[in-house]
Amino acid sequence: MPGGSAEAYEQVRPIFEAIAAKYNGEPCVAYLGPKSAGNYVKMVHNGIEYGLMQLTAECYHLLKELGQCSNQDLKNIFSEWNKGRLQSFLVEISAQIFGKPDDLVPGELIDQILDKAKQKGTGKWTSQNAMDLGVPVPTIDIAVSMREISAVKAIRQQAELLYPSRSPEKIDKDDLINMTESALFFGFIITYAQGLHQLQQASEEYGYDLDMATIAKIWRAGCIIRAALLQDIAAAFSEGNSPEHLLLSPSFINKLKETISLTRDTVNIAVRSGIPLPGISNSLSYFDAFTSGRLPMNLVQAQRDFFGSHTYERLDREGIFHTDWEA
Amino acid sequence: MPGGSAEAYEQVRPIFEAIAAKYNGEPCVAYLGPKSAGNYVKMVHNGIEYGLMQLTAECYHLLKELGQCSNQDLKNIFSEWNKGRLQSFLVEISAQIFGKPDDLVPGELIDQILDKAKQKGTGKWTSQNAMDLGVPVPTIDIAVSMREISAVKAIRQQAELLYPSRSPEKIDKDDLINMTESALFFGFIITYAQGLHQLQQASEEYGYDLDMATIAKIWRAGCIIRAALLQDIAAAFSEGNSPEHLLLSPSFINKLKETISLTRDTVNIAVRSGIPLPGISNSLSYFDAFTSGRLPMNLVQAQRDFFGSHTYERLDREGIFHTDWEA
Repeated sequence: MPGGSAEAYEQVRPIFEAIAAKYNGEPCVAYLGPKSAGNYVKMVHNGIEYGLMQLTAECYHLLKELGQCSNQDLKNIFSEWNKGRLQSFLVEISAQIFGKPDDLVPGELIDQILDKAKQKGTGKWTSQNAMDLGVPVPTIDIAVSMREISAVKAIRQQAELLYPSRSPEKIDKDDLINMTESALFFGFIITYAQGLHQLQQASEEYGYDLDMATIAKIWRAGCIIRAALLQDIAAAFSEGNSPEHLLLSPSFINKLKETISLTRDTVNIAVRSGIPLPGISNSLSYFDAFTSGRLPMNLVQAQRDFFGSHTYERLDREGIFHTDWEA
Repeated sequence: MPGGSAEAYEQVRPIFEAIAAKYNGEPCVAYLGPKSAGNYVKMVHNGIEYGLMQLTAECYHLLKELGQCSNQDLKNIFSEWNKGRLQSFLVEISAQIFGKPDDLVPGELIDQILDKAKQKGTGKWTSQNAMDLGVPVPTIDIAVSMREISAVKAIRQQAELLYPSRSPEKIDKDDLINMTESALFFGFIITYAQGLHQLQQASEEYGYDLDMATIAKIWRAGCIIRAALLQDIAAAFSEGNSPEHLLLSPSFINKLKETISLTRDTVNIAVRSGIPLPGISNSLSYFDAFTSGRLPMNLVQAQRDFFGSHTYERLDREGIFHTDWEA
């Protein structure tokens, strides 16, 4: 409803609710806020979608390369995942994709699809606007970058021949599947956390008056990022709860604690094997940085003051300081 | 010289060359191209600067937390590094910074500086414009994100208390210093590679007619990203050589081969210890993706065709295809 008012929405609400997808009978549609609030939320939805798609692609890569999983295996793995905490549209359709036979040559279609990802710009807009707002969304940023890297396939093919070939580490297949499921769930949580953080900041900056619980609820059905997880997100932001960030919400603290260790193992085996997992890695770095009271950015501030007299603040007293570092 | 012509530059060249910083007697100044070419190159210079600063900060973090290095140790380590392949303005001033006593309380000033990094926007512009050009610069992107994460210190401090505390892994100090030096050098190379790739694409897109060797040469002295490495970059792009990407240049293939293994080790120990190294990790992911002839973006294309009929290409034949995935 770009530019629409809450009053105008009330007029069309019955029609919208009738045609909208339902989650347990609740229509997944709502008036979100004034001005461009609705379009903005849709843009961030798409940014999150980029992140989740990148994460599923990385898990596919890892299972195929390290686990030697066949397309039938992958279909089964993703189908199983879709029965658990990872239940979501993208995991569900990935299972269907892996099982789809090719019409033109024997085998599954997935193996014949060119690995150059296109984009229509909404992920890029999300990242660019997040930078304007000063909100970090590194899992979405890297999803955009990876589509770009995928596009230069000719360079990648040349480069592959110029460097030592990969040596995938041996690992038990069931262990790998288990680790990867945790890493994907961890990455999903962090991607939603980044998108919600962006929406919270945008709401303040642009006066959108967004309600995070409402947004999480309308995403539970009928959209590409629908996931069982959104019910928990809606609960985390429901009345009486308004965490400043999803990482501070008790139910998410538990989910992250449960998955962090296997996420670290997943990143490590991929790093050793030369398989890029940038979405999962960036989600992990984001988590590690966000949960570090102290970061090394005192050095960055010192460097900025050294070469540009940009000044710095101190830990032990108020004020703005500058030092003649070469004195 | 925004908007200046090559002819206009010739008029002022003697004055510019007289006042410019010199590298082995060569003035580090040049006419770079028409229109906004000069400003654009300066913007990307600053984007690279963001990347290099983030990388040095990560190494500081790792040496301090895992290596228990004192400021005196750090001063010595960075001074030593500055005598070798890492010779650069930022490594040099970091050594000076670590050794700077505080005027107000006992100890070194670095320990009193608030770890919230500010920014004036040139890193952000570089990332945003790279996205418009479709050029991946993930090390620069994450440097922008990390400044943003550093800014929300109150959330970080809260979050730190809600999650299990870090358990830094034990490692021999000299081994750690050696690994970290390799990872920093690897990260430096990848950051320059990303910036140069952006300049090459911008040159085509905006008609700047940029010469990479000239740009590398004028960065060798008098600027924040000056580094011994730029002499090698200038050589890689000198007459007769015009690699499509720095990763395809023989001398850089060797440098990356020499450092990749210790870079993987560095990322792994940091991941296990919960110390975020997002700049180094993103540099590594970029390398691993750029040297992968096959990436899992066939799944992304299949997903896009599944939910949005965005079509896909095939590996085995020309054309644009669409599948009814649910049939």
